[in-house]
Amino acid sequence: MTGTVFVLNGPNLNMLGQREPGIYGGKGLAEIGEECRKAGVESDLTVDFRQTNHEGVLVDWIQEAADGAEGIVINPGAYTHTSVAIHDALRAVGKPVIELHLSNIFAREAFRHHSYVSPVATGVICGLGPAGYILALSAMKQLIAARS
Amino acid sequence: MTGTVFVLNGPNLNMLGQREPGIYGGKGLAEIGEECRKAGVESDLTVDFRQTNHEGVLVDWIQEAADGAEGIVINPGAYTHTSVAIHDALRAVGKPVIELHLSNIFAREAFRHHSYVSPVATGVICGLGPAGYILALSAMKQLIAARS
Amino acid sequence: MTGTVFVLNGPNLNMLGQREPGIYGGKGLAEIGEECRKAGVESDLTVDFRQTNHEGVLVDWIQEAADGAEGIVINPGAYTHTSVAIHDALRAVGKPVIELHLSNIFAREAFRHHSYVSPVATGVICGLGPAGYILALSAMKQLIAARS
Amino acid sequence: MTGTVFVLNGPNLNMLGQREPGIYGGKGLAEIGEECRKAGVESDLTVDFRQTNHEGVLVDWIQEAADGAEGIVINPGAYTHTSVAIHDALRAVGKPVIELHLSNIFAREAFRHHSYVSPVATGVICGLGPAGYILALSAMKQLIAARS
Amino acid sequence: MTGTVFVLNGPNLNMLGQREPGIYGGKGLAEIGEECRKAGVESDLTVDFRQTNHEGVLVDWIQEAADGAEGIVINPGAYTHTSVAIHDALRAVGKPVIELHLSNIFAREAFRHHSYVSPVATGVICGLGPAGYILALSAMKQLIAARS
Amino acid sequence: MTGTVFVLNGPNLNMLGQREPGIYGGKGLAEIGEECRKAGVESDLTVDFRQTNHEGVLVDWIQEAADGAEGIVINPGAYTHTSVAIHDALRAVGKPVIELHLSNIFAREAFRHHSYVSPVATGVICGLGPAGYILALSAMKQLIAARS
Amino acid sequence: MTGTVFVLNGPNLNMLGQREPGIYGGKGLAEIGEECRKAGVESDLTVDFRQTNHEGVLVDWIQEAADGAEGIVINPGAYTHTSVAIHDALRAVGKPVIELHLSNIFAREAFRHHSYVSPVATGVICGLGPAGYILALSAMKQLIAARS
Amino acid sequence: MTGTVFVLNGPNLNMLGQREPGIYGGKGLAEIGEECRKAGVESDLTVDFRQTNHEGVLVDWIQEAADGAEGIVINPGAYTHTSVAIHDALRAVGKPVIELHLSNIFAREAFRHHSYVSPVATGVICGLGPAGYILALSAMKQLIAARS
Amino acid sequence: MTGTVFVLNGPNLNMLGQREPGIYGGKGLAEIGEECRKAGVESDLTVDFRQTNHEGVLVDWIQEAADGAEGIVINPGAYTHTSVAIHDALRAVGKPVIELHLSNIFAREAFRHHSYVSPVATGVICGLGPAGYILALSAMKQLIAARS
Amino acid sequence: MTGTVFVLNGPNLNMLGQREPGIYGGKGLAEIGEECRKAGVESDLTVDFRQTNHEGVLVDWIQEAADGAEGIVINPGAYTHTSVAIHDALRAVGKPVIELHLSNIFAREAFRHHSYVSPVATGVICGLGPAGYILALSAMKQLIAARS
Amino acid sequence: MTGTVFVLNGPNLNMLGQREPGIYGGKGLAEIGEECRKAGVESDLTVDFRQTNHEGVLVDWIQEAADGAEGIVINPGAYTHTSVAIHDALRAVGKPVIELHLSNIFAREAFRHHSYVSPVATGVICGLGPAGYILALSAMKQLIAARS
Amino acid sequence: MTGTVFVLNGPNLNMLGQREPGIYGGKGLAEIGEECRKAGVESDLTVDFRQTNHEGVLVDWIQEAADGAEGIVINPGAYTHTSVAIHDALRAVGKPVIELHLSNIFAREAFRHHSYVSPVATGVICGLGPAGYILALSAMKQLIAARS
Repeated sequence: MTGTVFVLNGPNLNMLGQREPGIYGGKGLAEIGEECRKAGVESDLTVDFRQTNHEGVLVDWIQEAADGAEGIVINPGAYTHTSVAIHDALRAVGKPVIELHLSNIFAREAFRHHSYVSPVATGVICGLGPAGYILALSAMKQLIAARS
Repeated sequence: MTGTVFVLNGPNLNMLGQREPGIYGGKGLAEIGEECRKAGVESDLTVDFRQTNHEGVLVDWIQEAADGAEGIVINPGAYTHTSVAIHDALRAVGKPVIELHLSNIFAREAFRHHSYVSPVATGVICGLGPAGYILALSAMKQLIAARS
Repeated sequence: MTGTVFVLNGPNLNMLGQREPGIYGGKGLAEIGEECRKAGVESDLTVDFRQTNHEGVLVDWIQEAADGAEGIVINPGAYTHTSVAIHDALRAVGKPVIELHLSNIFAREAFRHHSYVSPVATGVICGLGPAGYILALSAMKQLIAARS
Repeated sequence: MTGTVFVLNGPNLNMLGQREPGIYGGKGLAEIGEECRKAGVESDLTVDFRQTNHEGVLVDWIQEAADGAEGIVINPGAYTHTSVAIHDALRAVGKPVIELHLSNIFAREAFRHHSYVSPVATGVICGLGPAGYILALSAMKQLIAARS
Repeated sequence: MTGTVFVLNGPNLNMLGQREPGIYGGKGLAEIGEECRKAGVESDLTVDFRQTNHEGVLVDWIQEAADGAEGIVINPGAYTHTSVAIHDALRAVGKPVIELHLSNIFAREAFRHHSYVSPVATGVICGLGPAGYILALSAMKQLIAARS
Repeated sequence: MTGTVFVLNGPNLNMLGQREPGIYGGKGLAEIGEECRKAGVESDLTVDFRQTNHEGVLVDWIQEAADGAEGIVINPGAYTHTSVAIHDALRAVGKPVIELHLSNIFAREAFRHHSYVSPVATGVICGLGPAGYILALSAMKQLIAARS
Repeated sequence: MTGTVFVLNGPNLNMLGQREPGIYGGKGLAEIGEECRKAGVESDLTVDFRQTNHEGVLVDWIQEAADGAEGIVINPGAYTHTSVAIHDALRAVGKPVIELHLSNIFAREAFRHHSYVSPVATGVICGLGPAGYILALSAMKQLIAARS
Repeated sequence: MTGTVFVLNGPNLNMLGQREPGIYGGKGLAEIGEECRKAGVESDLTVDFRQTNHEGVLVDWIQEAADGAEGIVINPGAYTHTSVAIHDALRAVGKPVIELHLSNIFAREAFRHHSYVSPVATGVICGLGPAGYILALSAMKQLIAARS
Repeated sequence: MTGTVFVLNGPNLNMLGQREPGIYGGKGLAEIGEECRKAGVESDLTVDFRQTNHEGVLVDWIQEAADGAEGIVINPGAYTHTSVAIHDALRAVGKPVIELHLSNIFAREAFRHHSYVSPVATGVICGLGPAGYILALSAMKQLIAARS
Repeated sequence: MTGTVFVLNGPNLNMLGQREPGIYGGKGLAEIGEECRKAGVESDLTVDFRQTNHEGVLVDWIQEAADGAEGIVINPGAYTHTSVAIHDALRAVGKPVIELHLSNIFAREAFRHHSYVSPVATGVICGLGPAGYILALSAMKQLIAARS
Repeated sequence: MTGTVFVLNGPNLNMLGQREPGIYGGKGLAEIGEECRKAGVESDLTVDFRQTNHEGVLVDWIQEAADGAEGIVINPGAYTHTSVAIHDALRAVGKPVIELHLSNIFAREAFRHHSYVSPVATGVICGLGPAGYILALSAMKQLIAARS
Repeated sequence: MTGTVFVLNGPNLNMLGQREPGIYGGKGLAEIGEECRKAGVESDLTVDFRQTNHEGVLVDWIQEAADGAEGIVINPGAYTHTSVAIHDALRAVGKPVIELHLSNIFAREAFRHHSYVSPVATGVICGLGPAGYILALSAMKQLIAARS
């Protein structure tokens, strides 16, 4: 195994597939998690897939990645736009980070156009739906390889 | 019973009656909760009255309302002005929402004039003190009736 | 009778029920006025229900309330967002004021999010349709009682 | 006759021809009104040409057009930049609207660059002097024709 | 007589002496008008002292001054901050204009710091209470003299 | 012939009639050009109708108008909002200019509300569809006549 | 003598009468000082008239007024718009203050529209030329009388 | 072959590999183009890879894609931040669009944080270097498949 | 013992000494806590030293201080810039508060220049590293003494 | 002696103890200077304590510190908010700098929330009254020690 | 020869001497080019003097300078204020750059006060007319010498 | 001699060569002054070279130039960004003015991008180091010649 990747999901993403399918699609988060784990297996990556509604828990998990993961894929949900704490945690940890959004946040309300996470991410993928998770893992594998 | 209504209270509202009575009045939150439950009984509504200081817990409760309640009366306290996560949760749940503030937030500091909750609320009541809760339940009963 | 309450309606509210029912509902202003008067009778309040398209007339009426009314319920329509004169008149009169909007102004265009009336209102009710008028009268009765 | 068109003029336009001819030209409003009526005759349009200094009167007239006119040509003068009430009235009426300005408002002071009327107008003509009125009537005739 | 001076007062100034004496003092508008007329007599000026709550009426009066007065002293009240129509009327009339405020508007709310009238006034006097009216008439006499 | 008028069209206007007919209508640019030429013939104007996607080419053409045309009708498309170079070219040339937009740009996204062209245009016509071109030529004829 | 009034003049006012007479008039500062002293004699006021180009010296003089004067008339020149130090000094001294400007600062460049002095002044007089100094002394006499 | 994909590169991308390798990496654009074409072969996509420094040429190419391509991958370089014309062209064409940036534009100067392209893109990929092109093609294949 | 002081630390401060020593220094939070407790002993203060990544927990602890502490020293970390809830809690509690930052937040990114905590703090100490904690306790001892 | 520390005080601080004791306390600047010198003696620091109302003199003194002091404690008073010259002088000198304010500037008017000094200070202490000076000297001693 | 210097001129500079001589002077661009070439001969510099109205062509030429010139003098005309592409090209090329404007852009419209070119220029010369070109070449000679 | 030129230097420029050579270079101000005087001799200009840290002294010197110099070269240092008083003095004097900066202020902090001096300068030279002084004198000689 090349190593472990945390795939962290923020508030309301547990509602995926049940609410507002017009924006977020009909696939549930559990199904996406399963697909990520499978893609991980094919890429020699252990995927640790989690969700929480709590900003502080996301900070806890990012800190945990300092010793427990080689990289972080994070869909911070609404905390994207308001959390300096997540910004600080990601910067402190110093691992490759890919920020992910299912929908194109730039085609939505103005308050979703600014991300506190982007300046401390290695890369950003948005608007490509659940497929974005698989692309993020693919890119993460290369980022990890390039560091070792 | 027509159904259940969640009455959700955000940070520092548990301090009500003890601190800054000049702004918030002298009545405690427990007493307001009791009045709400009584008003609910008269209106055939089960009132589930809660308080938390945690943004994530408010998101959890709003999601719980998707299956457990017919409507949400929410006094988001300070999270009114900073929480996109609560905004998203309320929008996803798709139930009638009445946003409530004890004081007139528009007559206070500038940073209290903007609410992330208002655009996803059905209606807003503010500045009417504890009586606002009873008015909100009365309006909620009509909103629920209009949907069924 | 406890006293008189002015219920003042601003520009274009006379069009209610005829135009844009999707936003404002299908009930006409005359019908709402009738419901207010009935609710007044039940609450020992004389309801004086008026409408005008003229900012200056609203100022005149508010001044008239200084001697002629115990409280003011006002739906200032478009003048909500532009009239410092109404702000000044309400502040000078020193009576309880409830600002009312049929629709949720915070879910509409940005220029409707700011109200010159709110900082001088006792409370605000919005987004609850014609029922908001009845709630406002109910709240006003309590505000008048609390002052005497 | 195809129908009636209201040509409504706002504050200070009655001073036309007497004051600031460098900006507005030397032709008086009465003369322009006469030309509009003649152009109407040639186009089978009854032109009802009015002027007022009062915002509320403009709102009254726009509402009157709901039943009394097929279209509105409006030169709102200074109320262009400050009146949400006129914006609301025009939107409620749902008739074709052409906004007109004698001078090029975009080449003047910054506070004249924003119009509350433009977003609810069908089209805008500005900077073409009194000839703009005749062009507006010509365009209005086509707009009315396209609706019937 | 040197000529006539219009002293025009805007919305809510008729409440003077009755409301908020802490800000505006205890003297009524009628008394101030009387003092202005007396000061006019001593200065060979006919003082025409008026008040209205209507923006449109202020515009009418300013236009009337084009032929009926040698100068205008105007306390536009709340319209100071919102009326482009008054701005346009004063500019079109081309007479000396002194803008007057009883209180120091720069020491009050931020929305009172901007005046649409100041850029078209000859001079501004504020914060000097009713005495400001007499100073304004004194200055106006010199302005009129300097033009003739 | 009174003279030549350049009718210049900016980026993406060659797509007219094929794309987004809901906003721009179903008529193609070639057809509009033909109508303009016909209208020119009736007015003794030679209409030179062109389109380009390149900002620099528009600048070249405007400079060409210095010696080759009596007036310019320009629909700058997207360059309306971003091109200081076109602004400078139009100002340098010193001919009458009518800025034209098929749709009402003020009813669209915020970034389309500002035009660098308007301050140097003689007049602006927008929101009147292809008919706006004919109105512009009619107005241009008068502007040219007024200069000679 | 009723007392002493400091009349303080800021940077570049010593150039008065020599430079830019179109804006500031042709009268020199010495002459204005002489007129102020004469007006003081008639009003039983000792006028101490000074000028400096140094912000710090203005602060020194204002502090000196704490014990040496009954009131301050100040034309802060360019420091009006930039000096928090003068703001603080005037507030600390607690004497009546009249801010004075020869020209109408609101009809000039935008950076002259804001004054740090106005919020701590009792009143403001501007745009009335050298006559403003005499009006200011007249008003100051009344302010001093009202305090004793 | 599933179809053709345009991969369009904007200004200065031809300098890749020669200048500022610290920001953009050491790989040249020709090499990236070759990799894209290879990846296309594996995915049954014909990759048409182009570069230009001219905004107008990018608009031309996007229009060409209306008939000539199934999707567009675009790295608009500096025009990302200034071109409404490219925004309009992409919107008019109505094909799937992936916006691509080699570096993380959100970690650079503030003027690079806003993109006119993002609101009309299906998805955005940035900060992942040349590997981003291959990910974009992979995502594009899925987008094309989902449409057919 | 004079009393108890809460020393509360916000998100990511548990990473101190391990990450980004260039900004925050090499000393760990446990060591700082130990130094604080020792300094407390010398000053007759019981120091209760805590850390959490959760905004809600900080609110809980501040409320706990209402009955359990004489003063609060708080390093709110990233919540400094985003938490109105902490602002409200500190204000409600009404104890002396010293806001503390290890680094000089004013020499860092713009979004760290604003603090929601400062307006409700008694004093602020920043940029002095771990020594700031000891200075804060020294100052807090005096603040407590001054209240008793 | 470890060395010399300049304690520099800006405009109006010489008024301390005489004016606005509600904000600044009742202790005079001379008394504070005496306490600083005593605290210096205990810490082996020579304290050179000065005050001026002149921005230029503060710049002169800061430059003097380049050769004459080991560190600078500066209370820049009102120049905090307006002086780029003091910013530049402190940066050029390259000594440890502690910025000091008696009151909590963040709890006062908005124009006092920004400091040009903070970005070039090592640390900031505010809101702790005269005790802040002693804390600053204590911190300065450590900063000097850490450099040698 | 010391080397080659590109002197690049942007849109509308070919109109020089024919249009708006009040702003830009009466000398044509050809004449300026001739003077530059002569000044180059005296300084052992080959001056390659060009003009274009196309942003993309300026980018092409700047890239050409990477291998073909020792330095760039650029008068970007209107693209100064809008072109990020030119900014990027100049930065990538890494040669000394002098930005030049004939008129003082800071004394003109606000939208001319910002330059995208200045942050990547070595120096800026503006407001000195055609003489600025000769000064720029003189400065460029020294910059080239200092690098070799 | 053609005349005298004042070369005025603002705050902290006396530190040149001793501090921050990375930004300002290693040459001291005295040496630059010497070079200026020599260049003056060659150009028949008497160069009066001065430096001060005081804004008021710069105003004094500029006023002195009204009678004592033919032109002013000014490096206002930090007062560039804050001094309206220097702006006013330069405008009043009416002599040719060249504003000079050693470093490229547009490539530094945002608060250095705005100059109050530029709008009243004839020309601006920045970023060319000490050589800029010689270029400025060369340009000034031509400006003086063009006036006589």
